[in-house]
Amino acid sequence: MQVIKLKQFKNSSRFQSVMARRGKNDNSVLKVVEDIVVDVKNMGDVAVKKYMKSLNGMCLRNLRVSKEEINKAQSVVSDDFVIALKQAANNIRLVHNKQISLEAQSLVSPLCGIKVWKKWQPIEIVGVYVPGGLASYPSSVLMSVIPAQIAGCKKIIITTPPRPDGSVAPEVLVAANYLGVKDIFKISGAQAIAALAYGTETIPKVYKIVGPGNAYVATAKMIVSRQGEVAIDSPAGPSEVLIIADKTANPEFVAADLMCDSEHAEDSAAVLLSTSLQLARRVIKIIKNTVDNFSTGNRVKKSLKSYGLFATVKTLGEAVDFANDYAPEHIQIMTKRARAIAKKITNAGSVFIGPYTCKSAGDYATGANHVLPTGGSAKMFSGLSVFDFVRLVEYQQVSKGGLKKIRRTIQVFARVEKLPVHEFSGAVRFKEK
Amino acid sequence: MQVIKLKQFKNSSRFQSVMARRGKNDNSVLKVVEDIVVDVKNMGDVAVKKYMKSLNGMCLRNLRVSKEEINKAQSVVSDDFVIALKQAANNIRLVHNKQISLEAQSLVSPLCGIKVWKKWQPIEIVGVYVPGGLASYPSSVLMSVIPAQIAGCKKIIITTPPRPDGSVAPEVLVAANYLGVKDIFKISGAQAIAALAYGTETIPKVYKIVGPGNAYVATAKMIVSRQGEVAIDSPAGPSEVLIIADKTANPEFVAADLMCDSEHAEDSAAVLLSTSLQLARRVIKIIKNTVDNFSTGNRVKKSLKSYGLFATVKTLGEAVDFANDYAPEHIQIMTKRARAIAKKITNAGSVFIGPYTCKSAGDYATGANHVLPTGGSAKMFSGLSVFDFVRLVEYQQVSKGGLKKIRRTIQVFARVEKLPVHEFSGAVRFKEK
Repeated sequence: MQVIKLKQFKNSSRFQSVMARRGKNDNSVLKVVEDIVVDVKNMGDVAVKKYMKSLNGMCLRNLRVSKEEINKAQSVVSDDFVIALKQAANNIRLVHNKQISLEAQSLVSPLCGIKVWKKWQPIEIVGVYVPGGLASYPSSVLMSVIPAQIAGCKKIIITTPPRPDGSVAPEVLVAANYLGVKDIFKISGAQAIAALAYGTETIPKVYKIVGPGNAYVATAKMIVSRQGEVAIDSPAGPSEVLIIADKTANPEFVAADLMCDSEHAEDSAAVLLSTSLQLARRVIKIIKNTVDNFSTGNRVKKSLKSYGLFATVKTLGEAVDFANDYAPEHIQIMTKRARAIAKKITNAGSVFIGPYTCKSAGDYATGANHVLPTGGSAKMFSGLSVFDFVRLVEYQQVSKGGLKKIRRTIQVFARVEKLPVHEFSGAVRFKEK
Repeated sequence: MQVIKLKQFKNSSRFQSVMARRGKNDNSVLKVVEDIVVDVKNMGDVAVKKYMKSLNGMCLRNLRVSKEEINKAQSVVSDDFVIALKQAANNIRLVHNKQISLEAQSLVSPLCGIKVWKKWQPIEIVGVYVPGGLASYPSSVLMSVIPAQIAGCKKIIITTPPRPDGSVAPEVLVAANYLGVKDIFKISGAQAIAALAYGTETIPKVYKIVGPGNAYVATAKMIVSRQGEVAIDSPAGPSEVLIIADKTANPEFVAADLMCDSEHAEDSAAVLLSTSLQLARRVIKIIKNTVDNFSTGNRVKKSLKSYGLFATVKTLGEAVDFANDYAPEHIQIMTKRARAIAKKITNAGSVFIGPYTCKSAGDYATGANHVLPTGGSAKMFSGLSVFDFVRLVEYQQVSKGGLKKIRRTIQVFARVEKLPVHEFSGAVRFKEK
């Protein structure tokens, strides 16, 4: 960990790898996942159970989480968790409620006698993959399910990897149950995605699958979606943060927030761009002195070594330009007039403004969504929102008078495009009897 | 062509194939396209030109369409075409202008001291594939480029297959030039998609690729998008229509509109659901008597044979249920109180209401978009719109007082999810000095 000038960094050998982050899914996973997907498509539950045994070492009799399991989970979780869950869910609901006017139809009449309008329709059945296994992520349940409910999805199915003893983390079950999700299945990885995509005897086929996962999950989502039979959310990779700071920033906050992203995984990324060399040096010193206090310290060190960057910039404008090119999942602005700087950020998943807007606040509690585009894909993708769970259906109505006004246009285009019935289907409506 | 009762049809051997339509992309294309994509990624223009020669039989010196070519096109197209182009473009602009309030930020404050808002940001650089070759599709230029311009995309690149003589159809060039698109490249199929995805010496790398194409184009889009390096629009297959008619419908209109979809290609689909057996029989008779009048008649006959359906229903409700399950690209309602029936259609690309709203009107002139989901994917995808060219960037700002209110929630979730620095990054902001 050392501070480098951003301009110099751009010419360094490390530049490409830092910009690319972890990079892409391992192609070696592809063949394995192809087989799993085909098997589950053809064999249903039998194949799902087979892979839960061979890959996850679990003999599951029932894939569906039972009422008893949910009741047990309710009795196990702490009161503190239930309070936190309710606050988080409430804030997420408030923030996501405002995203779409589902009733708005925006009727336009470009010419008298012609009306065109659109209407949002919910995707009827959606599948949510909640990562699990060794750790548990009840926050993921909230981030995916609440927007789907606001969109009006009729059926929401959760699949999540069970723990080694075959049970699901109680916090995940309590969160799902609190939101009223009835269909929860204990299935891991690629077999879960295939089951959702094609349906099995016990798992309903869904129209869209959302939720983050490992390379197997990401690859399976890509495979099942490539023929358009099921939609998926945008691709998600390791967590990443870029912090823009000036000399007014608190180095302890900056150090904590860089480590906060790095602790997710060894391939997470954390970038500091500072107008103050002194600040950057103090941040590094604080990280060195505190990182081993955390059980995740080794992950932090490895991720900073591989994908970390501590750089100085001459101006905040230079930092903004780099940030828009890097297109980070999370960006934190810890400078004077932070909100004015934030307005210049166009390529990012979520923009955290000011010293008290730490990433963990957005991850859990502000009501913002934490499923965000990574690896630079913020240039073309959005974070998860209510828009992921709706479709825009088009409606149009033309009167005879309206059709008369565009009849020539139809005729001209149909001739250019060599589609004579297209011309005729306009003309037949004016045929003399 | 014969009329069958819809209920009986559901038990027939043809049911599955009609519901599935043409089905999916040929897997044999995959290997060929994989090679093209890798070659273009590695070799740039050299590979593009190589494939234009080996696959399309063209030796192109310049991939970019020159000013001279555009000027020549301007002098060749008819005045009628220019008038039609302007009317179509104007209507498309009027309809699409209303789709998003790009300025709206919908700021929400779920708790005092916490603010969350979202802002639409345009995708900066987009690529538009305009199909071509033997036929030409200037309407495709309008449907893709105008929504991108309304979204605020800074750079729009068009690639389109040249005609056998190496030129581009003048109507396509005039349409692109009328909209102010400067970068037009003569490239076909998979090599065009790869060039847009990765960039070459002459073709800029884009962040999203839209526009319909053949199986090579569709497969290439799938391949380049699977790692999240470039986004694509929703998958597009052969054109299809489902018409719901009662005895009040004009059989000549219905016959023309069924043939209008079928003339696109041999694998297009056309379905008639009628409460009147007499109407259905008259429609079939009219088709038989008129189909050979059209140069596209053979395509119509083949597509109706493979994917056509003429069925009677007991009630319009039965037709609506089937339609929502079939999820057609285009649906036409030619019944009494058509608008009330249309309200019940939730799964469709575009809903055409009443006897004068023919599909060709929507294809060319009403201002609606004609790039629509096919093959049942209207259950999860939208037609092309301004939303395809924007991203929703999230912003959040928390004060010290706001953070205090959610501090416990952050702590509880961070502990459950075993991310200690997440807890610490909240706590460090309240550390006593």
